[in-house]
Amino acid sequence: MAKLIYYHNLLSQPSRALYMFFKKAEVPFEGKVVDLLKGEQFTAEFEAINPFKKVPVVNANGFVLIESIAILRYICRTYNVADHWYPKDSVKQAQVDEYLEWQHTNTRADCALYYLHKVLWPVMNGKPVNEQRVAQLEKKMITTLDLIENVWLKNKTFLSGNEISISDIIAICEIDQTRIAGYNPYANRPNLSNWKMRTATYLSPYYEEANEILEMHVAKYNKKYGKLNSHI
Amino acid sequence: MAKLIYYHNLLSQPSRALYMFFKKAEVPFEGKVVDLLKGEQFTAEFEAINPFKKVPVVNANGFVLIESIAILRYICRTYNVADHWYPKDSVKQAQVDEYLEWQHTNTRADCALYYLHKVLWPVMNGKPVNEQRVAQLEKKMITTLDLIENVWLKNKTFLSGNEISISDIIAICEIDQTRIAGYNPYANRPNLSNWKMRTATYLSPYYEEANEILEMHVAKYNKKYGKLNSHI
Repeated sequence: MAKLIYYHNLLSQPSRALYMFFKKAEVPFEGKVVDLLKGEQFTAEFEAINPFKKVPVVNANGFVLIESIAILRYICRTYNVADHWYPKDSVKQAQVDEYLEWQHTNTRADCALYYLHKVLWPVMNGKPVNEQRVAQLEKKMITTLDLIENVWLKNKTFLSGNEISISDIIAICEIDQTRIAGYNPYANRPNLSNWKMRTATYLSPYYEEANEILEMHVAKYNKKYGKLNSHI
Repeated sequence: MAKLIYYHNLLSQPSRALYMFFKKAEVPFEGKVVDLLKGEQFTAEFEAINPFKKVPVVNANGFVLIESIAILRYICRTYNVADHWYPKDSVKQAQVDEYLEWQHTNTRADCALYYLHKVLWPVMNGKPVNEQRVAQLEKKMITTLDLIENVWLKNKTFLSGNEISISDIIAICEIDQTRIAGYNPYANRPNLSNWKMRTATYLSPYYEEANEILEMHVAKYNKKYGKLNSHI
């Protein structure tokens, strides 16, 4: 099997998703941490690997591939991983794709933007939080999380069927990220809450391992701002 | 082969993409137009087909699938279409996936948001255009179009390699949409401009057929507002 080099940083949601997947599906890799806080993604050396200056990236014996979900599909096709992650059956595979396509401009966009506007950008730029914009983004994110609760998880154990798939790993990392911004996505959403427990338990101990840095940020935020958010 | 029912409206970018693909790749389908202007997507009948109330949707002999790119992958796997559209070779397939994943929060998000804020929402809501927001969105869209010009189309004939693929069909529909908003995405971008000619020529006469409604809107906008935009 080709040697897999994995450029990542566990601060990033898709990086955590791929990390948990590689560990749980027993895909051997050589991890290379890109220090995002020191701006290593902007160096000429890294730009030669990924012109978009982002993680995650893999180099599979010389084949460089960006985009986390393209990476997951490629690994599922070329490595010997359990079928449930990305089923070979065409209908089941399409059902996994269905969520993975939908999530980009819904779960991913909404949860990440809420976190970026409420936490990361104000910290990075030293500017006050634009409360009006954050309120708009929170409203949009709530709509999306409610669709996951009421549509995607209606009558199913996992997002794309009754077995865990790469959909669930991608989703849990995006949804968890909102907790840094003081929002509890699982409160008052029993389907989402049960799914989270099920998914995290399945991925244990790699879920806890990959999320250590997330929990540090959640604790820091709660300490800094107090439990101001009514959703906590 | 399963009977394919295709719910669509050529006003929507992904609907046009799938329409051109089905025609060019000779995938037989029964078209059902959902009248978006009359709100047919919000009827209980259509909601039973797609709870997200959007087009396009296919029903392949009872299997209902939403999300245009999941539909394209499924059709390429299950119908007898030329390999170049979505290659079976794992590396080539991953290169198609790479663009298709990237485009959601770049080409798709940026071009569509520019059009929505500048044209559709002000018309629908009867409110003036928020020029400041449109200027922000135009800046972001320009960055994305420049990445397509300088990264995706660098040293390649098409977006995912040297043969046309489903990446190109998805991309051309999103990029063309900005023309309704009075923007010419092809001006001063020779790679993008040559790629557009190449892709449109390949897809002819279905490109012209699917885009008849787009050209009507482009003409209407230019007549209504004049050639105000410096990019035209």
